[in-house]
Amino acid sequence: MRTKFIEEEIKYIGSQLAPHWIYKNFNIQGDAIVAFRGECEVKLTEMVDIEDVINNEPIYSKYMLSFISEQFNIDLVEGVFRQRLLVCIIKECLEKRGIFVVRNGDDLMIDGRKLSVSIATKSITSTLIHTGLNIESEGAPLEVSGLRSELGINDTKEFAIEVMNMYAEELDDIELASTKVRGV
Amino acid sequence: MRTKFIEEEIKYIGSQLAPHWIYKNFNIQGDAIVAFRGECEVKLTEMVDIEDVINNEPIYSKYMLSFISEQFNIDLVEGVFRQRLLVCIIKECLEKRGIFVVRNGDDLMIDGRKLSVSIATKSITSTLIHTGLNIESEGAPLEVSGLRSELGINDTKEFAIEVMNMYAEELDDIELASTKVRGV
Amino acid sequence: MRTKFIEEEIKYIGSQLAPHWIYKNFNIQGDAIVAFRGECEVKLTEMVDIEDVINNEPIYSKYMLSFISEQFNIDLVEGVFRQRLLVCIIKECLEKRGIFVVRNGDDLMIDGRKLSVSIATKSITSTLIHTGLNIESEGAPLEVSGLRSELGINDTKEFAIEVMNMYAEELDDIELASTKVRGV
Amino acid sequence: MRTKFIEEEIKYIGSQLAPHWIYKNFNIQGDAIVAFRGECEVKLTEMVDIEDVINNEPIYSKYMLSFISEQFNIDLVEGVFRQRLLVCIIKECLEKRGIFVVRNGDDLMIDGRKLSVSIATKSITSTLIHTGLNIESEGAPLEVSGLRSELGINDTKEFAIEVMNMYAEELDDIELASTKVRGV
Amino acid sequence: MRTKFIEEEIKYIGSQLAPHWIYKNFNIQGDAIVAFRGECEVKLTEMVDIEDVINNEPIYSKYMLSFISEQFNIDLVEGVFRQRLLVCIIKECLEKRGIFVVRNGDDLMIDGRKLSVSIATKSITSTLIHTGLNIESEGAPLEVSGLRSELGINDTKEFAIEVMNMYAEELDDIELASTKVRGV
Amino acid sequence: MRTKFIEEEIKYIGSQLAPHWIYKNFNIQGDAIVAFRGECEVKLTEMVDIEDVINNEPIYSKYMLSFISEQFNIDLVEGVFRQRLLVCIIKECLEKRGIFVVRNGDDLMIDGRKLSVSIATKSITSTLIHTGLNIESEGAPLEVSGLRSELGINDTKEFAIEVMNMYAEELDDIELASTKVRGV
Repeated sequence: MRTKFIEEEIKYIGSQLAPHWIYKNFNIQGDAIVAFRGECEVKLTEMVDIEDVINNEPIYSKYMLSFISEQFNIDLVEGVFRQRLLVCIIKECLEKRGIFVVRNGDDLMIDGRKLSVSIATKSITSTLIHTGLNIESEGAPLEVSGLRSELGINDTKEFAIEVMNMYAEELDDIELASTKVRGV
Repeated sequence: MRTKFIEEEIKYIGSQLAPHWIYKNFNIQGDAIVAFRGECEVKLTEMVDIEDVINNEPIYSKYMLSFISEQFNIDLVEGVFRQRLLVCIIKECLEKRGIFVVRNGDDLMIDGRKLSVSIATKSITSTLIHTGLNIESEGAPLEVSGLRSELGINDTKEFAIEVMNMYAEELDDIELASTKVRGV
Repeated sequence: MRTKFIEEEIKYIGSQLAPHWIYKNFNIQGDAIVAFRGECEVKLTEMVDIEDVINNEPIYSKYMLSFISEQFNIDLVEGVFRQRLLVCIIKECLEKRGIFVVRNGDDLMIDGRKLSVSIATKSITSTLIHTGLNIESEGAPLEVSGLRSELGINDTKEFAIEVMNMYAEELDDIELASTKVRGV
Repeated sequence: MRTKFIEEEIKYIGSQLAPHWIYKNFNIQGDAIVAFRGECEVKLTEMVDIEDVINNEPIYSKYMLSFISEQFNIDLVEGVFRQRLLVCIIKECLEKRGIFVVRNGDDLMIDGRKLSVSIATKSITSTLIHTGLNIESEGAPLEVSGLRSELGINDTKEFAIEVMNMYAEELDDIELASTKVRGV
Repeated sequence: MRTKFIEEEIKYIGSQLAPHWIYKNFNIQGDAIVAFRGECEVKLTEMVDIEDVINNEPIYSKYMLSFISEQFNIDLVEGVFRQRLLVCIIKECLEKRGIFVVRNGDDLMIDGRKLSVSIATKSITSTLIHTGLNIESEGAPLEVSGLRSELGINDTKEFAIEVMNMYAEELDDIELASTKVRGV
Repeated sequence: MRTKFIEEEIKYIGSQLAPHWIYKNFNIQGDAIVAFRGECEVKLTEMVDIEDVINNEPIYSKYMLSFISEQFNIDLVEGVFRQRLLVCIIKECLEKRGIFVVRNGDDLMIDGRKLSVSIATKSITSTLIHTGLNIESEGAPLEVSGLRSELGINDTKEFAIEVMNMYAEELDDIELASTKVRGV
């Protein structure tokens, strides 16, 4: 799995959670995870999470660290497991910096305030994951938590690279773990 | 997924990581996770982890809390993801008690000492997972950490039940998460 | 699998055979089967059965009992088996009322007249099944049979609930049957 | 799928439910269903149905019509659907002769007496199905029903060939049904 | 797998690489391969190969022998293997006529000039393959090779039929090869 | 996929076509292909090809170049495609040296004499492939062809390395090819 931190700011509007968005925009082919920063505004018409649509909960964050991952030739249930692992790894990268948050499914919470949003979906050929962490906590529809505003993480780029490297390494490790056991 | 804490002590010798061991012994059919306590001694001839066999590393623990899970009709790579999630959830149940450990793949570590062992493998019809947590830390071949001896967890039964409930709930939640998204 | 009989009449026009139609309209998430009554008119442009399109055979029924089922994370061939089982169960629920019909693939026939229409297809994340039973037999393009007009079934709601319950139970049973056998 | 009625009597003892038993004994390669007649005695040590082992229910029939099918490259859940379809088709072939039995999962019953036994299991490369119909009803551990002794079917060979042909045809038809629909 | 040589010329513009194109146009249902001749012009907007889109490489051939195959219920990776096998078989059919070309992935080359174009992609229910061989070499954007203009093959119809027959036979043979081996 | 030429001679007796044989003997984990030279004698009791067992055709070669490949988490049909590709690549590596042989399924032939033997099978966690090329042609049960004795290839080690490198590269390329196409 290839990784890339994208320096330029990108406003995440949901349309980026599309097959080959990474390939077409950054010329990275195959399984990949990228991260970027920017405003996040996903309108109901762009949302893939039908639960949020039913509940009329569009997503907004003034400034967010977004991860997009596309992983090919895997089904959606395994894709959700891969999403959960990403969320666990983000939590663990926070722990390395002395910050302890609570994971609840695909949410990271601090004192009941959401630090993150996340979704996993399918295209015909791939699974796609978006996980976003608020950098600033103001301006959101609900009271949220923010990497910089509340947790004091200013080097969001270094943080993102750490997350992506750990994630890529663990996916390799999981693949390898499936090749070392005697069937029973 | 059904869960059960088994009151009687069971010496884990590796042979329990077998298809339908749960069904045959506790009459629990289908996807399940059970937990029990007892000595753990897996000889090289019983190990499914070929890496450990090659490295000549049998497993021993004087007193261990073992989880065995059998999950049907899933392939091994997804099975390893399900194993990793179990390890993450054990870590999070420790955090609820104010104990912070480090996860490294399928290992939980405290100051470089292993708290756990874990493996996932395949039978013809299922994936099988064993995860064991040392309760006592003495007597192991390497210096290890223990739930009771080092972390002060005396109610290992309650702890195990908590882990199993959270695990069963999150697996349901993951299955459900795959049913709520628009394909892209 | 969740089941629901929908009291309000719905005209089935084919557009209901869409991913998450059940979830969006009745807030039932995950594998589900619902039933409703109403006119049925599927134009060629809405049909998923290309054979019918090629043969120029639109579907019409003045008053139909329709079942829609969405089942996630299964491939289409298994989806067709699940459709056939639904048709077998409908046949068996008729037999409980002393009515004997002939199954021919996914058709139910009485003296060469079709009682039913049925199709199974795929979305990116699920398999979708529609099976419809004529309640009234008049007005159809071909001579057909009807639950009420010919077979004297007036309690189509009770009949539908029976079918859905038996179907949901057998799917559970099949899943379970795959977990009780020694591999050979 | 190839079909064959085997003239010679074979005592079914469970060991025939093994990968390539059909290929090795009758030189029929690939997906196949065969039928034969003979005594049936499956001891607990040979049973693949762990439920029966737990309940201590060996199988015995003085004279049985057995179907064995091996179908390659399909998983066990789909294999159980293929087993259920075989049972439905047997029921329908009985109906053609004016005999009406009740299906309960993979059992066929007459007035609460079992006419049949059936199981589906997995090998590394295939799914294997055994379905047996009592020809004679005496001598069984429970009160059972029999094709000849109770239902008056004397031409069990012709009956078996009819079942196998209908089964082979419907499997082809199901495969084909998955190729004629527009995805949604 | 059914095969058909289409006598009428068809201009290949990319839109033919669509689910059920073969079924709708030639009434051939299920796995199939067809061949036809005609101009080939695939504009960037019609291309499924994103690599070519990124590199701004539309496809043009004045006169091409095109093969289109649709194969249902297989994933894309296996679909690419099936595409590679088709390319190998085309190469081998050339060898039967004493013509030796070099295969490089899914390309056939003569002295560094491309004889062929090829792509494999997925629909919701099938894998689709297009492989085209230049008949005439003039008029292409790059210097290419041609079946007739350079290799002297005038009976492109017979050649195409030979390729399709060998391909259909080998796919059957591969399926069968998976049914004759003992698991290990 | 990792590759390794094994310098020491190994007598191939069939038992090497076993899960993790490569890992246990050469400490190469994961997908791999290795090659070695030595006598080849596979008795009927060791054969995985049931067709050969039925036909009573044990395998013998006085001196053979053997390739063993283990590839994890793929089903057997795809495994047979991967075997066929290996055979095609061996053929193409011969062509680079000016030697033209005929492929017939998984056999390579020269004037009706077999140069090769090959089989693909499944373990619980992997697909395993053996392909052997006679180096010497004498001593075989049938008249065969040999790399050195007939084709003049003396550098069988270099030849083997070339084959393994091309095979590993094309497998990577195929994986990548599945990630670059728009679904249709």
